[in-house]
Amino acid sequence: MIKTADHLYLQVADNIEQLIEKEVMKIGEKLPSVRMLSKQQGISLSTAFQAYYHLEAKGLIESRPKSGYYIRFNSHRMPAIPSISSPVKKSCEVSVTEMVMQVFNRYRGTANNLVDFSIAMPPATILPAAKMAKAVTHALRTLPNYGVGYEPLQGNLTLRTQIGRLSLSWGAAYTGDDVVTANGCMDALTLSLSAVTKPGDTIAIESPAYHGSMQLAEGLGLKVLEIPTHPVTGIDLAYLDKAIPKHKIRACLFVTNFNNPMGFCMSEQNKKELVDIIVKYDIALIEDDIYGDLYFGKHRPVNCKTFDKHGHVLLCSSISKSLAPGYRVGWTIPGRYKDKVLAIKHNHSISTASITQAAVGHFLEIGRYEFHLKNLRKMLHTQCLRYSQALQEYFPEGTKISRPEGGCVLWIELPESVNTFELFQQALKHQITFCPGRIFSLQNKYNNCLRISFGTPYNKQVDDALRTLGKLVRKMS
Amino acid sequence: MIKTADHLYLQVADNIEQLIEKEVMKIGEKLPSVRMLSKQQGISLSTAFQAYYHLEAKGLIESRPKSGYYIRFNSHRMPAIPSISSPVKKSCEVSVTEMVMQVFNRYRGTANNLVDFSIAMPPATILPAAKMAKAVTHALRTLPNYGVGYEPLQGNLTLRTQIGRLSLSWGAAYTGDDVVTANGCMDALTLSLSAVTKPGDTIAIESPAYHGSMQLAEGLGLKVLEIPTHPVTGIDLAYLDKAIPKHKIRACLFVTNFNNPMGFCMSEQNKKELVDIIVKYDIALIEDDIYGDLYFGKHRPVNCKTFDKHGHVLLCSSISKSLAPGYRVGWTIPGRYKDKVLAIKHNHSISTASITQAAVGHFLEIGRYEFHLKNLRKMLHTQCLRYSQALQEYFPEGTKISRPEGGCVLWIELPESVNTFELFQQALKHQITFCPGRIFSLQNKYNNCLRISFGTPYNKQVDDALRTLGKLVRKMS
Repeated sequence: MIKTADHLYLQVADNIEQLIEKEVMKIGEKLPSVRMLSKQQGISLSTAFQAYYHLEAKGLIESRPKSGYYIRFNSHRMPAIPSISSPVKKSCEVSVTEMVMQVFNRYRGTANNLVDFSIAMPPATILPAAKMAKAVTHALRTLPNYGVGYEPLQGNLTLRTQIGRLSLSWGAAYTGDDVVTANGCMDALTLSLSAVTKPGDTIAIESPAYHGSMQLAEGLGLKVLEIPTHPVTGIDLAYLDKAIPKHKIRACLFVTNFNNPMGFCMSEQNKKELVDIIVKYDIALIEDDIYGDLYFGKHRPVNCKTFDKHGHVLLCSSISKSLAPGYRVGWTIPGRYKDKVLAIKHNHSISTASITQAAVGHFLEIGRYEFHLKNLRKMLHTQCLRYSQALQEYFPEGTKISRPEGGCVLWIELPESVNTFELFQQALKHQITFCPGRIFSLQNKYNNCLRISFGTPYNKQVDDALRTLGKLVRKMS
Repeated sequence: MIKTADHLYLQVADNIEQLIEKEVMKIGEKLPSVRMLSKQQGISLSTAFQAYYHLEAKGLIESRPKSGYYIRFNSHRMPAIPSISSPVKKSCEVSVTEMVMQVFNRYRGTANNLVDFSIAMPPATILPAAKMAKAVTHALRTLPNYGVGYEPLQGNLTLRTQIGRLSLSWGAAYTGDDVVTANGCMDALTLSLSAVTKPGDTIAIESPAYHGSMQLAEGLGLKVLEIPTHPVTGIDLAYLDKAIPKHKIRACLFVTNFNNPMGFCMSEQNKKELVDIIVKYDIALIEDDIYGDLYFGKHRPVNCKTFDKHGHVLLCSSISKSLAPGYRVGWTIPGRYKDKVLAIKHNHSISTASITQAAVGHFLEIGRYEFHLKNLRKMLHTQCLRYSQALQEYFPEGTKISRPEGGCVLWIELPESVNTFELFQQALKHQITFCPGRIFSLQNKYNNCLRISFGTPYNKQVDDALRTLGKLVRKMS
């Protein structure tokens, strides 16, 4: 790794973080003064300050007035992670629509003072809005007839080429010709799922799973089998291997990186094995990789698509979690199902909007995307730690919290006695929303779980809201 | 009707047109000189010239050098209109996908010198592209965070309000609250059809019917019953009335104004009766009104939705035929099915693109839309007449041609011996495309029909292409 001068403070901070994690330095212990740190490490005073600021922002240390810096947090002292899921062993007809509409629609476009932990993405205020607007202006200037005509069915070529290039970061080398654009990631999932199933078919998903996938499956007349899922390693592959022939599974739909809602990131080995299983039974895997770019570690995780030699994997993603949700720009890399996806796209919407596609293509082409992602990842990592700490502090003993290494959601398991849909309704009176666990399953499960998005930067309002939530939980447990 | 000075020439031209239609003046007859006309009518010389120019542009008269103006065309001398359809009396599984993909995809984004009669809309070159670009810039300036955040699920409020106002022109008074925006009209049809059916259901469509509707139905696992259709009066209502209970029809999907492909506009009385039938059986009518604004007469036709007292009609439309197809802005006014439509929109794509919606909303708000439509309608009417005349001239005796009073397509019936899919393949070698009739039915019908779009302004290239098509037809018949 190349170390440039402006990364020196990060290197120093990393070292201190490791000492905290290994408990060489314990919670409550005083850190060396800034002057001392500067001397010890042979760095400037300002670099030493920066290192401490960085650790403070992450919530790992705190400064006490006229006294210095103290260790306040150790991620190894975090509460237990949530349980491994054990969904009922049969496929179910879908029916959580109404609860989802209650969670998402009762406030959309109305309440303004809402503290919203329900939407799994960063708020528009921390996205590069002005730079995107410039990209739109550029698109208007360069598109024929200012973009009023149809885009080609497959999508804007500049955008597709750039999406192809992004695959380099996860160890593949796709080209624009492999990509089909869509009206956001949900539309990409809709096209992909429609291409590989017909009404009445059964698909496999995680348990808990993204409610949007289940709603989508319902709309397409599909049955859904929930696969037991581990909060750290992901899908139970041995279980899946037996379930596919037994339940005549036609396709799997999984979020393999920084899973929504559980947070896990499947290991490279598990991803390879998953692809092997898919190929063995000659079925399709729809891989929703919408969070893959939001990693907290040093490297981007690979995808199942990275190991997809025969085109069984349809990789879906978008820029909605990282750049401009309102632009509705998403895509699928559908492998052997490309012609089918194109035919369905033609039937559903003929083409996707010209201007927003061209604008995102331009933004990626000039290299702004990677630059923006770097900052966004740093922010989200810090926010993840701050939210985790607050939840640990405000929520009752016995609360279990996931430890995602990317993405923007936490999965929380409360004592069995707490019903989080009731909690949701009470929280709403305090202008707070989140996702109750029940909406992440077709079965009557996860009633004591909830999903909290940490997309919004930590501030007093967030802190107050989490404290209030904690009080409500304590009353109910 | 208020007559302003700049409409005087139109009034004079209209009068002459009526004399031609009533055969008071016959084909080949010489018209009064410009000087004489000016004297007779008490108008200026330049107004008299304008009136003749207008009639010449419409192809009704021609100027012969050093001789004057002569009558060259009478729409009453047009060839016969196509036959009333008599589709097989059973519902069918859909299966014309491949032919449609061949017609639309073999050239998309590749050939540039193609004379394209296949796409039912005006080309981007005659749309108000630069003014739309200004509307986009306005949208960027006024949207919060430059539009990078999500729109409300139901759609941009300014746009919805303006769409509500458009309903005044067809005798209704809907508000923004009644409207749900979509990613173009196809997406509006997808949402609407999904809301009122489930896989395995049967729907009724015209025969011939828009291929996109049939493809869509296939994708949603629906069965389709084709209803006999008259080329002037539209759907056979007596037939429909019996078919609904017999075939357990769940919904009808009709293009009631300037039908695609047949061109008919159902009368007010028939529209009323259609709504009565729908209400009697308590089923849904999806009314595709995408061509309603492109009327050639003095008044916009009403919709079935105009007579929809109990919310059984889902009216779908867009600005793709008149303003900016590439923007993908459409809508549905779904009546009693609004909640269902919103739930499905949430599942399919969460929301529609912010910027293009806001831009179209602004364009409508400042009154530019009606102004633009006025010119577009005039152009399309002229083009319709010019194309009809050319077809009459170049195609063999016995060719039947529809006489639409709006929209942008002609439906042509050739001698039984001509297979228009073969004709399509031969025409492609001459860089000419159109829609073969076969793709407008699920049954093995309309093999001797074709649809020609007259969206492209008449010019030498168009004339040559129609002449070539005529030659190919003559060889085959």
